[in-house]
Amino acid sequence: MFSSLARCASRGALQVLKGASRTCRPVVVPCFGHQTLAAAPLPAVGGGAGVRQARARDHERLLQVEWDDGSCSLYPFTWLRDNCQCPLCTLQSAQARSLLLTDLDVHTGVDQVQLTENNKVSITWPDQHSSEFEPEWLKKRCFSPAARQARQEELFLNERDFWDSGLQIPTLNFEEVLHDDKAALDWLMALRRVGIVYLKGAPLEQGQVARLSQRIGYLRLTFYGHTWQVQDKTMANNVAYTSGRLSLHTDYPALHHPPGVQFLHCLQQAQQGGESEVVDGFHMAELLRKDHPDAFNTLTSLRVDFTDTGSDYCDFSVQSKNRIIDVDSEGRVVRINYNNATRDSTLDLPLDQVQPFYCSLKTFVELMNQPENVVTYRMEPGDLVTFDNWRLLHGRRSYQSQNGNLRHLEGAYLDWDEVMSRLRILRKAVHGDSECPNL
Amino acid sequence: MFSSLARCASRGALQVLKGASRTCRPVVVPCFGHQTLAAAPLPAVGGGAGVRQARARDHERLLQVEWDDGSCSLYPFTWLRDNCQCPLCTLQSAQARSLLLTDLDVHTGVDQVQLTENNKVSITWPDQHSSEFEPEWLKKRCFSPAARQARQEELFLNERDFWDSGLQIPTLNFEEVLHDDKAALDWLMALRRVGIVYLKGAPLEQGQVARLSQRIGYLRLTFYGHTWQVQDKTMANNVAYTSGRLSLHTDYPALHHPPGVQFLHCLQQAQQGGESEVVDGFHMAELLRKDHPDAFNTLTSLRVDFTDTGSDYCDFSVQSKNRIIDVDSEGRVVRINYNNATRDSTLDLPLDQVQPFYCSLKTFVELMNQPENVVTYRMEPGDLVTFDNWRLLHGRRSYQSQNGNLRHLEGAYLDWDEVMSRLRILRKAVHGDSECPNL
Repeated sequence: MFSSLARCASRGALQVLKGASRTCRPVVVPCFGHQTLAAAPLPAVGGGAGVRQARARDHERLLQVEWDDGSCSLYPFTWLRDNCQCPLCTLQSAQARSLLLTDLDVHTGVDQVQLTENNKVSITWPDQHSSEFEPEWLKKRCFSPAARQARQEELFLNERDFWDSGLQIPTLNFEEVLHDDKAALDWLMALRRVGIVYLKGAPLEQGQVARLSQRIGYLRLTFYGHTWQVQDKTMANNVAYTSGRLSLHTDYPALHHPPGVQFLHCLQQAQQGGESEVVDGFHMAELLRKDHPDAFNTLTSLRVDFTDTGSDYCDFSVQSKNRIIDVDSEGRVVRINYNNATRDSTLDLPLDQVQPFYCSLKTFVELMNQPENVVTYRMEPGDLVTFDNWRLLHGRRSYQSQNGNLRHLEGAYLDWDEVMSRLRILRKAVHGDSECPNL
Repeated sequence: MFSSLARCASRGALQVLKGASRTCRPVVVPCFGHQTLAAAPLPAVGGGAGVRQARARDHERLLQVEWDDGSCSLYPFTWLRDNCQCPLCTLQSAQARSLLLTDLDVHTGVDQVQLTENNKVSITWPDQHSSEFEPEWLKKRCFSPAARQARQEELFLNERDFWDSGLQIPTLNFEEVLHDDKAALDWLMALRRVGIVYLKGAPLEQGQVARLSQRIGYLRLTFYGHTWQVQDKTMANNVAYTSGRLSLHTDYPALHHPPGVQFLHCLQQAQQGGESEVVDGFHMAELLRKDHPDAFNTLTSLRVDFTDTGSDYCDFSVQSKNRIIDVDSEGRVVRINYNNATRDSTLDLPLDQVQPFYCSLKTFVELMNQPENVVTYRMEPGDLVTFDNWRLLHGRRSYQSQNGNLRHLEGAYLDWDEVMSRLRILRKAVHGDSECPNL
C-alpha cells in the first residue's frame, strides 16, 4: 500500500517500522497454577479462551479463573459487581453503566460462582442479583501487567517509531485513502506510529483538507477558521502568513490543548524557496533526556506562557501555560509545545530560573536543528501532508513572494481523540474483532 | 446587574463572592532600595509607573529598574534581548516574536543602558542592536513573586469562590448578555468564579445555545453534534437520552480534553420530576483532601479508563485515560473527570490498587451527594443554565416521560480557552486597558 515505507536509519532508541498493519502484540505468559497474590506476577492473556474452572477466593475477595491452557486470572469482586453486564446494570444501546456508584457495595462478597453450559462465568451476589461474564470479555480485562499493557496498546497505540533525516516519509494516494478502508487504516496507523504521512494526488482546489477531515469525522475549528489559507498576507495576524522563514515549531501552543493532527494541502508552490522541514520531537526529547538531563528536567517541569491575539474567524485574546515538553505520569513524552513566535514576553518564572530556562531551550532547539535530525521536502501542487502536531516540529524556508505565483497552502486541524476513534472503527472494519486473537 | 448574587454559606475554605466586576487585585509591595538577589523578596509592581533610574548589574547580567515610588525590579539581559519590541524582532501586526531562538545569544551582555526623554528604558547590545522598553510594559512583567501572581490572576482568573447548597445561583437576562458588553462580562466573570450562571428569558425555540456560543466565538463540535437534544429517546446512545435519574457527573470524560463549559437551554420541562442538581466539584475535592487525604491522593494519581461508543454526528469509538481529580503542578485542583456511565470496564490498575480505588471513589461520591453540598433547581422553559464542566458535577432526577409533553433541553459545549479569550476582550472593552491600574 505504501509507495515508500518509513526507514529508520538512526541510533540508539530507534525502532524499525515493521509495517503499518501491526495493531497489537500477542502476549502469552504461562500460569503457575493457583498462585497467591504475593507470589509471582499474575499470568496474562493468551492460549485458550475457554474457562476450565472459576472459584471464589473469599478471603481475598477475588474471583480466580483458570483458563483452558492452564494460565489463570484474578478479578476483584467489587470490579465484577461494578461491571455486571445485565440489562439492569448496563444500558445496552449505549454500552454504558446504569448501575450507580451509590448503589455499589464496594465490600461485597459472593454467594455462588458457577460455570454455565456455554462456558460463561455466573456469579450470584448476596442480594441474589446475578451476573454472567463471557470468557473473552474477562480475558481482555485480565489485571496482569502483561495483559493490561497489551490492552492499553490496543486501545491507544502508544508505540512510536523514532526517525531522523533518513526518514522516507510514508506516502499514499489521496483518493484511495478517501474511498478504501484498508488505505485509510494504513494512513492512520502510520500517522500514529511514524507521525507523518504524505498523500499524493489531491485535486488542485480548496476544500480537500475538509474532505479528508470528514473521512475521519470532523475538523477542529479554531480562531483561524475551519480551514486556513497559508499565504503571504499584508497585516499578517500570524508569522505563518508572511514569506519569511518559519523556524521549527508546533502549532498553537497558545491553546491549552493544541490541535493533535494537522493537514496541509499545497495548492501552489513558490518558484524559489518554501521548502518544508520536519523533525521528530519525541525523538529529540529522548536525545535531550539522555544527553542533557538537566535541560530535559527544566523543559518538562517549567510552564511557559504563550499568547496569541488578533482577529480572524473572530477577534481573539488567547493565553496559555504549557511545558515545552510534556511527559505523562510514567515519564513518557506525550506532547511538544513550542512556537517561538507566540512564546509570551510574560514569563512566569522566579528570576533565578530564567537563565536555566533559556539555556535549556537553546540546547533543545540546537539539537532539533542538527542536519542529521531534520527531514526536508518540497510540496508540489496536489500534495497533502498529514502530521502529528503533538510530536513533530515543522518549519518552512523563506520564499520569494511574487505576483501571479502566490504560494498557497490550505490547512486544517483535528484532535487525536477523533482520529483514534476513526482508527479503531477502521481497524474493526478491516480486521474484524479478532485482529488481536490473543486479547 | 445580578438579580441574585452568589451567597457562600459554608465552612472552612469558602470565600465570599465580592461581586462579579472584580478583575484583579492591586499588589503594592514596597522596595527596599538596591537589594541584592540573595536578600529579601523582590519588590512587586505598584505605585508610580515612571522609571527613576535604570542600570545594568553586569556581573549578574540583570537590568535594575528603580521606579518613581522607590520600589525596584530586576530583569535578566537574556529575557530583555529575547523580547526586543523593535520591528525587526517583533512582527507588529501579529504581536508575535520574529527573532529566532537560534539567533538569540543567551549569554549576552549589554553595551549601554539609558533612559530616553520620554522615560523609556533604552538598551544597546554588544552588536549595536538597540531595544526600547516602555515603563508600563516592564512593570507588568516584573519577576517578583507578587507581580507574577497578580499578572497570572489577571490573565487566567484562577481564584474561585466555593459554595454548597446555600448558593443562590447568579442570574442574568439572556438578551442583555447577548447585547450588552457589561452584562456579558458579568456573566463570564461569574461563570469563571462561581462556576454556574443562570440566564432567564431565552426564546422558546432551538438555536439559542448556538446564539450564545457566537457571543463568545464558536461552540465545540463533538460526536454528539454541534448542539444536542436531551430527550427521552428509543435506543439511546447515552444515558442522558433516557428518563432515568442521572447521578452527579461531568460531561465527556471519555475525551482527554473534556468540554470546559456547558450550556443547557430548557425548551420543555417534565410535568413531574426532571429537577437539576449541581455540586461544586472543586469544593468537594478540597473537602476530600482535608478529611480523606488517602482517597484524595488515590483519585489524583490513578488514571481511569473511560469509553464511549456509538453513532450520532457520525460513528465513534472514544477512549481516554483521566484522573478523577486533576491537580496541576502546584497541587491546585483544576478539573474533575467523572461520569459513572462511561467509566470503562477496562480498568488499567494493578490488582492491589483496585479496591483502594473503589473505596476512594465511593468516599468522594458520598461526599458530593451530601444534601448540604447539593444545589437543586428546576429549569422552566426559557431558562438557560451555563456552567463550568471542568468544575461542577451535575445530575438530573428521573422524570415521567409523557406523550405530548416531552421534556426537552438543548445543549452545547465550549472550551475554556475560547471563553477566557472573550472574557479578556470584554474586560478591555468595558474597563479599558487600565482596569488594573497597579499592573
